[in-house]
Amino acid sequence: MGTEENGNGRLEGGVTNHEAAIEEEEEEEEMEEMSQLSHRRKKGKKETTEEGREEEETVPIEKVFEGKEVPPWREQLTFRALAVAAFLAIMFSFIVMKLGLTTGIVPSLNIAAGLLGFFFVRLWTKALQMTGCLQKPFTRQENTVIQTCVVAASGIAFSGGFGNYLFGMSGRIANQASEANNEQNIKDPKLGWMIGFLFAVSFLGLFSLVPLRKIMIIDYKLIYPSGTATAFLINGFHTPEGAKKAKKQVRALGKFFVFSFLWGFFQWFYTAGDDCGFAAFPTLGLKAYENKFFFDFSAMYVGVGMICPYIVNISLLLGGILSWGIMWPLIGNMKGSWYPADIPSSSLQSLQGYRVFIAIAMILGDGLYNFLKVLSRTMSSIISIMRSQGSTSTLPVSDNGHPITTTTIISFDDQRRIEIFLKDQIPKSVAYGGYVVVASISIATLPHIFPQLKWYYVLVSYIFAPVLAFGNAYGFGLTDWSLATAYGKLAIFLIGAWAGASHGGVLAGLAACGVMMSIVATASDLMQDFKTGYLTLASPRSMFVSQIIGTAMGCVIAPCVFWLFYKAFNELGLPNSEYPAPNALIFRNIAILGVDGFSSLPKHCLTLCCIFCAAAVLINLIRDLSPQKVARFIPLPMAMAIPLYIGSYFAIDMCVGSLILFVWEKINKTQADAFGPAAASGLICGHGMWTLPESLLALANVKPPICMKFLSRE
Amino acid sequence: MGTEENGNGRLEGGVTNHEAAIEEEEEEEEMEEMSQLSHRRKKGKKETTEEGREEEETVPIEKVFEGKEVPPWREQLTFRALAVAAFLAIMFSFIVMKLGLTTGIVPSLNIAAGLLGFFFVRLWTKALQMTGCLQKPFTRQENTVIQTCVVAASGIAFSGGFGNYLFGMSGRIANQASEANNEQNIKDPKLGWMIGFLFAVSFLGLFSLVPLRKIMIIDYKLIYPSGTATAFLINGFHTPEGAKKAKKQVRALGKFFVFSFLWGFFQWFYTAGDDCGFAAFPTLGLKAYENKFFFDFSAMYVGVGMICPYIVNISLLLGGILSWGIMWPLIGNMKGSWYPADIPSSSLQSLQGYRVFIAIAMILGDGLYNFLKVLSRTMSSIISIMRSQGSTSTLPVSDNGHPITTTTIISFDDQRRIEIFLKDQIPKSVAYGGYVVVASISIATLPHIFPQLKWYYVLVSYIFAPVLAFGNAYGFGLTDWSLATAYGKLAIFLIGAWAGASHGGVLAGLAACGVMMSIVATASDLMQDFKTGYLTLASPRSMFVSQIIGTAMGCVIAPCVFWLFYKAFNELGLPNSEYPAPNALIFRNIAILGVDGFSSLPKHCLTLCCIFCAAAVLINLIRDLSPQKVARFIPLPMAMAIPLYIGSYFAIDMCVGSLILFVWEKINKTQADAFGPAAASGLICGHGMWTLPESLLALANVKPPICMKFLSRE
Repeated sequence: MGTEENGNGRLEGGVTNHEAAIEEEEEEEEMEEMSQLSHRRKKGKKETTEEGREEEETVPIEKVFEGKEVPPWREQLTFRALAVAAFLAIMFSFIVMKLGLTTGIVPSLNIAAGLLGFFFVRLWTKALQMTGCLQKPFTRQENTVIQTCVVAASGIAFSGGFGNYLFGMSGRIANQASEANNEQNIKDPKLGWMIGFLFAVSFLGLFSLVPLRKIMIIDYKLIYPSGTATAFLINGFHTPEGAKKAKKQVRALGKFFVFSFLWGFFQWFYTAGDDCGFAAFPTLGLKAYENKFFFDFSAMYVGVGMICPYIVNISLLLGGILSWGIMWPLIGNMKGSWYPADIPSSSLQSLQGYRVFIAIAMILGDGLYNFLKVLSRTMSSIISIMRSQGSTSTLPVSDNGHPITTTTIISFDDQRRIEIFLKDQIPKSVAYGGYVVVASISIATLPHIFPQLKWYYVLVSYIFAPVLAFGNAYGFGLTDWSLATAYGKLAIFLIGAWAGASHGGVLAGLAACGVMMSIVATASDLMQDFKTGYLTLASPRSMFVSQIIGTAMGCVIAPCVFWLFYKAFNELGLPNSEYPAPNALIFRNIAILGVDGFSSLPKHCLTLCCIFCAAAVLINLIRDLSPQKVARFIPLPMAMAIPLYIGSYFAIDMCVGSLILFVWEKINKTQADAFGPAAASGLICGHGMWTLPESLLALANVKPPICMKFLSRE
Repeated sequence: MGTEENGNGRLEGGVTNHEAAIEEEEEEEEMEEMSQLSHRRKKGKKETTEEGREEEETVPIEKVFEGKEVPPWREQLTFRALAVAAFLAIMFSFIVMKLGLTTGIVPSLNIAAGLLGFFFVRLWTKALQMTGCLQKPFTRQENTVIQTCVVAASGIAFSGGFGNYLFGMSGRIANQASEANNEQNIKDPKLGWMIGFLFAVSFLGLFSLVPLRKIMIIDYKLIYPSGTATAFLINGFHTPEGAKKAKKQVRALGKFFVFSFLWGFFQWFYTAGDDCGFAAFPTLGLKAYENKFFFDFSAMYVGVGMICPYIVNISLLLGGILSWGIMWPLIGNMKGSWYPADIPSSSLQSLQGYRVFIAIAMILGDGLYNFLKVLSRTMSSIISIMRSQGSTSTLPVSDNGHPITTTTIISFDDQRRIEIFLKDQIPKSVAYGGYVVVASISIATLPHIFPQLKWYYVLVSYIFAPVLAFGNAYGFGLTDWSLATAYGKLAIFLIGAWAGASHGGVLAGLAACGVMMSIVATASDLMQDFKTGYLTLASPRSMFVSQIIGTAMGCVIAPCVFWLFYKAFNELGLPNSEYPAPNALIFRNIAILGVDGFSSLPKHCLTLCCIFCAAAVLINLIRDLSPQKVARFIPLPMAMAIPLYIGSYFAIDMCVGSLILFVWEKINKTQADAFGPAAASGLICGHGMWTLPESLLALANVKPPICMKFLSRE
């Protein structure tokens, strides 16, 4: 560790600038800590090896954990971890399946997975200790492995499309649609082909982004708010006894966790019926609410806003204002001229089409720009390494060929984390080779399952998929929003149009949706887990293996659970029944529209898409070419794009989080720095944990008693 | 100032025990301050006469003001003060009249009066300074005088009954009632008799409680939350420059003021329609809401709860649980057996009758007990003074004959305030003589205005009125709730029954209501103003004179304003019109029921009244006879009685205030002690101030845009 100013040794990614604030904090921490250390040494007292006992304002987390050894990656994958993960995976699959088939809204369960994983293993070890068996200690790495495995497995229950595209292929849903109700476009669920299909498509996402993990986690320092919060939670559980300062942070986390949990519980009581409850509170007036401008009292997104850098939140809000405040109302005025007035507003042929396609175009522009930038840098560094071969062999080299410049000031935490993160490599040959092998198998087998899905459709999908996966994982890391379904819709549209109505385009589109969604969703989940692993010192290798095991579990569990539902409830998929699976029909309708190709898009949509895609590239270019001082005030196109599709309400939540942090920093900077992330994690985790009992209440058919409704005066 | 433990030199009133906490705080303050002073003297530095410049944690307010001379009482009554007061009185009378005639709900405006009084006089002095005229400085005493005068004047617009009893006499309202629609029971409004009537009844309240002011303000230390908050506000306005610590408190007050004001504004948007908005939020569930158990998000009552001692808030909640949680539901089950099932629930013959009469019985029991206790103590001290005549002449003697025992520790603030409060006496001869003279005039003139109201009805009313006025002023001081209308209803019932249906009992009852309401309402307003005056060092004499002037203003302004409305709007009083005056019909209907006498009361109501009256006396006896340690946990019957009639929601608000203060004290006791009252005052004043723009919006017929409605799942 030197004392020079923070140089440009790190990759100057699109996010590095706005990360400056956080980094500075960390540096400050480190500086402070160093000065304290030297001070103490001078005084010659309190020199102790138990670093956890320090009571200074800002003790690096990893200092607290220094006494605890990090087990080798194979030991992180214990039998008990996988057993608990399997149990939780089955439980969560039931929850996800039920919710997907009733409302179609599926919450993220990774926090619940981390927490329940901890408790079950504790139970397990306690039980075995009573019988006198010797047990290995339960480590946070093992905890992370469980969490990763459960998320991967239960993720399949969502990305498998049982509530949307996969079930949308069935005759039962086809009967409800007006067109394409023929044998060519129908494939009824069968356990066999579903498992086969999932095995064919679900692993590709894992391999697609593995080589980029160092760039996204270490260089771009993407936040992955939920992943970070999960890591905080897991670290909190495993904080060694006696670490007072760390315990204080854990207590702060606990307090906000309880508050957020109870707040979620309280809100639940008022959500009987549609558009009820705090999530429908027109905080800024009814007019603004119609355009999705409102504070929806989500403790989770306030927490996310507290973790995310200011520029991300401002970009989100800016994007929301530009789109929902200006663009959509203007385009809405063109109703009847730019797009037909007589189709529902949720159709891709109406205003919704502009929203989805322009958002994706912007994300694609940003994703492509960053992807190419990463590629060119990797290339140039490989070239430079080849030129000066041998001289860099003593430096630790990341799998992207970037030497870790040891002259850069890196905080103690980061130093330790980077060290562990880069220790266990996943060989590039495994990553690239795996991608090619899995893709080949997939290309070979999928046309057998769906004859309408030609092998070249799949091939083309797999060529472009990594860019889309990168874009989604990038946006997910910035804002905690995964737009996997939007990418799926894009695939339906493109492949469906390519195949054409006469060649079973509807079914081809739906199958392509599955291909795309699986890759995009698993890739961003994997990257989020890598972030959690990075913060808990879990080995990337054990994470990756755990993901593969979890995915394999999911490929078996999810179809079986769906099969149970399908066989048990004859009404499954019928409107007004207990399990209407609303998204299945929506996805099928998109496919029906999609087969008409670009001509079915509303007017000027394609032009606007091109403009926004170019704008995203341009803004990125300006960011990268401006000096640091200016660049940190230029918004991020990726963050601006997400509210285009979703609305501004979560951006407002996140800005409230920013505001809270800002005021807190004004009042007490040291306290805010020490407890801000813990508080934010508490808010996120509390909400995340509440989703579990909420889901269980929904499973048990317990309905909330009150509807808080907001009516106009008229 | 001695250093002995706080003895029993003060009157051991019903409230002294639970006041202990506050008093202790004040003592602590004083002790701390003394030790700091002595410490400083020892150090021999920072000895300064500008006491305001101290930066210690707890500087007594009056230390800050020590440099400012208190003008003699005559100088507190300036021409500019009375001119501004007259202007505000007219404005507020319009507001009160309009609200009384539309919804019947009239907010308390004394905070707005204090604030606007300040700004208008400032404007006045600024304007005159520009013209070069020499001006006397504007003092807080003058500010208090304005506030008192405005409250007295605009109070008549409410207690004059233009929205209820007085207008209820008119033929227009009589036509809407089913019975007593004859000439004997009708008296249409005329400007002449209305002014005469008001002059005859409005001054008695002022004289009735004047002799008790020392007992209620100094001995019982009643809080009068709104009065205290107004005083904090006025003190804040006039805090001398350079008093840093005091300025900090003012800033805290300002912050909470702004918050409370904005919160009121925010809430307003969601109140389109009935049962809309935060005030109808079933925070504890719909079942609890039906029984008036909910947190209604009123920043004002949270603030009141923060000012009131814990035991008051607990007593309120206890009373609410006993009545609305247990008794009323049980009695409600007797529907059809104890009282007829086919009458509206708002009728005094149904459940509402139990609520009103039992609440009044309990208040009467408590009021009577305390009244007799005060009387007996006064007697005994007069006797003891007569026995040891001459020897006590050097001690300052209050007008109730209580010597101020100088051995008791009294804080600096209290010492200074008591000194000023007792300096300008209102001679007992004026008080008692005034009461007798005004009562005689009233007894002589009222039967001329209302032949149905026999002179002995009035005489009997005036004999019992002081006890009722005492009870109400006492409860008002504890909880900020004035039950003047409930006393008015009691008078309708009793006098109406006495007169009987055949002798114009309906009109007699309504007139008696006016007599009673005027006394009770003005008496408690006066006492609240005395509290404000006590805290701002205004002379009781100037307050009293200001009240008399204000009342006289009101007796002319209010009927004139009503006359304007009456002449301008022909539909005044008709249902579904712009000015339905809903309470006028309600009051007339009570009178119609009342003429049937006690037989019209629901079953067992009288028995229950007697039980609760006795219980109130008994609880008070136990409180007074138990040792201090036990007594402070015994609830106050007066506080328990108020939610019997009103419901528990405000008790819950106040308990939330208690909780906030409790937690604040746990976290930082010194900070809570220093800023708690300022914060509470800010909350109360912010809400109080919001009522003004809210009323103006209602006047301008601007309706809120959204209705936040709470519906059951069904």
